[in-house]
Amino acid sequence: MATIGSSEVVEGISLDEVRLATRNHGMPLEALRYPLTPAGLHYLLIHFDIPGVDPARWRLSVGGHVERPVVLDLATLRALPPTTVTVTMECAGNGRALLEPRPVSQPWVSEAVGTAEWTGLPLRSILEEAGVRPEAVDVVFTGADHGVDGDEEQNYARSLAIADALRDEVLLAYEMNGAPLPPQHGFPLRLVVPGWYGMAHVKWLRDITVTDVPFRGYQQSHAYRLRTIEEEEGKPLSRILPRSLIEPPGFPEFLTRSRVVDRGPCTLRGRAWSGWGPVERVEVSTDGGRTWSDAELGDELSPWSWRPWSMAWDAQPGEHELCPRATDAAGNVQPLEPEWNLGGYANNSVQRVPVTVRRASG
Amino acid sequence: MATIGSSEVVEGISLDEVRLATRNHGMPLEALRYPLTPAGLHYLLIHFDIPGVDPARWRLSVGGHVERPVVLDLATLRALPPTTVTVTMECAGNGRALLEPRPVSQPWVSEAVGTAEWTGLPLRSILEEAGVRPEAVDVVFTGADHGVDGDEEQNYARSLAIADALRDEVLLAYEMNGAPLPPQHGFPLRLVVPGWYGMAHVKWLRDITVTDVPFRGYQQSHAYRLRTIEEEEGKPLSRILPRSLIEPPGFPEFLTRSRVVDRGPCTLRGRAWSGWGPVERVEVSTDGGRTWSDAELGDELSPWSWRPWSMAWDAQPGEHELCPRATDAAGNVQPLEPEWNLGGYANNSVQRVPVTVRRASG
Repeated sequence: MATIGSSEVVEGISLDEVRLATRNHGMPLEALRYPLTPAGLHYLLIHFDIPGVDPARWRLSVGGHVERPVVLDLATLRALPPTTVTVTMECAGNGRALLEPRPVSQPWVSEAVGTAEWTGLPLRSILEEAGVRPEAVDVVFTGADHGVDGDEEQNYARSLAIADALRDEVLLAYEMNGAPLPPQHGFPLRLVVPGWYGMAHVKWLRDITVTDVPFRGYQQSHAYRLRTIEEEEGKPLSRILPRSLIEPPGFPEFLTRSRVVDRGPCTLRGRAWSGWGPVERVEVSTDGGRTWSDAELGDELSPWSWRPWSMAWDAQPGEHELCPRATDAAGNVQPLEPEWNLGGYANNSVQRVPVTVRRASG
Repeated sequence: MATIGSSEVVEGISLDEVRLATRNHGMPLEALRYPLTPAGLHYLLIHFDIPGVDPARWRLSVGGHVERPVVLDLATLRALPPTTVTVTMECAGNGRALLEPRPVSQPWVSEAVGTAEWTGLPLRSILEEAGVRPEAVDVVFTGADHGVDGDEEQNYARSLAIADALRDEVLLAYEMNGAPLPPQHGFPLRLVVPGWYGMAHVKWLRDITVTDVPFRGYQQSHAYRLRTIEEEEGKPLSRILPRSLIEPPGFPEFLTRSRVVDRGPCTLRGRAWSGWGPVERVEVSTDGGRTWSDAELGDELSPWSWRPWSMAWDAQPGEHELCPRATDAAGNVQPLEPEWNLGGYANNSVQRVPVTVRRASG
């Protein structure tokens, strides 16, 4: 595994990946200070291009195995009673750049996360209005974003099993943090599936189709699966595994992002989340994972958002490696070492932030 | 030189650079469709951490070689008559990742740009109020962002010569596109120097000091200079060289960003800018720079903003390389090949967008 925070070379990162990394972006880790991630700091992964959508001409079609297929415009959706949910969203590929060998895709380190207030309609209300037929199996969500992935031309599309689609918290969102969705977050409408990795939250939504057979689209049956060889069917990704990140203390060096902290009392802070249940424990190690202390937990903003934590630290001169580790109510604990898979998904191994504590300020 | 749009490996990109590239971000090129870049799509380069600034406690000090040093709060600044300027801003390192050998820093390809409406006060009004003394040489702008760069601990600081600082269009901005500055763009106040590369637009501004000797800070006398060896003093970067970018037609492949266009009539569009004078000509080549045709120019939003252009193209099946080339009123023309320098600055060689035109849609 690559050493975190070092200048070590990750061989063979291509110009393609650099191009992806300069388009997409994570949340700078100091933005962990904000309970709600300000616009523009929330992580972003765009598979193809951001579509240019004319809101006046935009329509959402709801069809397939339903009693009453319907086509809705934005004004109609916005006139229905809205609901707001605070959600921590994370890319399934977060941590990918730390795997060895490194799967080639958007090279996230640990910053592909953000928390926002999403406002819109419960998906269930729309599905109930359309009347899901008894033979229904999946609900397929198709966006306006179009391109090629895995040699297949496609609009981005993902499905949810009926039972998941009918959960209370699943939303068709038209606002983010109280403002219309920005173009890059799915304007004018996106799906929000609280607790699930980002691939489920289909952006630029324009079609909802209920099917009587399992959906086999590329992003469902090939991408976003845990497999170790191409030939394997693999296990689909769904809910977010627990992760805790620390707001890096002290100040950074520009290029290496290595950090200096002044000696003395220092409050370490961060946030932790899981899609499998509330975070029940955050432990922090200041010696690279040899010893651990429990952090104090604050309140989450919603059942689907991250939980703040803090821990007092008496920083003594020398080199330290700070690691926070979250445990959720389902008993999932962050591992110390990543488990490799072909797509580089769901690497929730503990973050490692090396810091140098100095004797006196410079 | 690395081939643009290829899968060619740029050797030795380090995890440090990946970490920078996932923090900072460019403007996805399809966002060239927007005359004003929406919040969150404007390029962003943050040297250290985004500082957490409490607007109630924030103050701007204006001092040094002035008659009446002053400390101003945000309410006072906002009560003065505001002015708004539309500005295209570009990182001096744009194009760096295409240089060979590749200078190690934020690996921009061609997307480090954005256009915004900045609202604030003319810097001149504040300097005149303070009374610049006759011996004044430079005005030094210091931000709240703190870190290490080139082995030197520092707050980010840059200077302007008195004559540049007193220009009409130089602004102390507290709004971007009609909203308070986002944290990542310098909240609560930043300098805006229309026509200059981004390094001049000091974010999180908290101190303005007039000096009677030339400022020799790291970001002025070492970084942001055109040099080919470390020992050279180098030429300081200032105004933006002309560049034109094309809104990539067709649709992309996820990883390689290679593009497919349907055969037939297609309008190529883009935007061009220069800090040395208005863009007077944009030529477009569809054969990698062998032949050129003049594009039609639209109106710029302001003397400091990009200018839209378009050109009809009858796309014929096969492989094409689209290249736009801008010429400004000062006679600067974009070169076909980059000129290497140690910091990887000001590479304004023409963009090359390979596209495959297909016979029929898939």
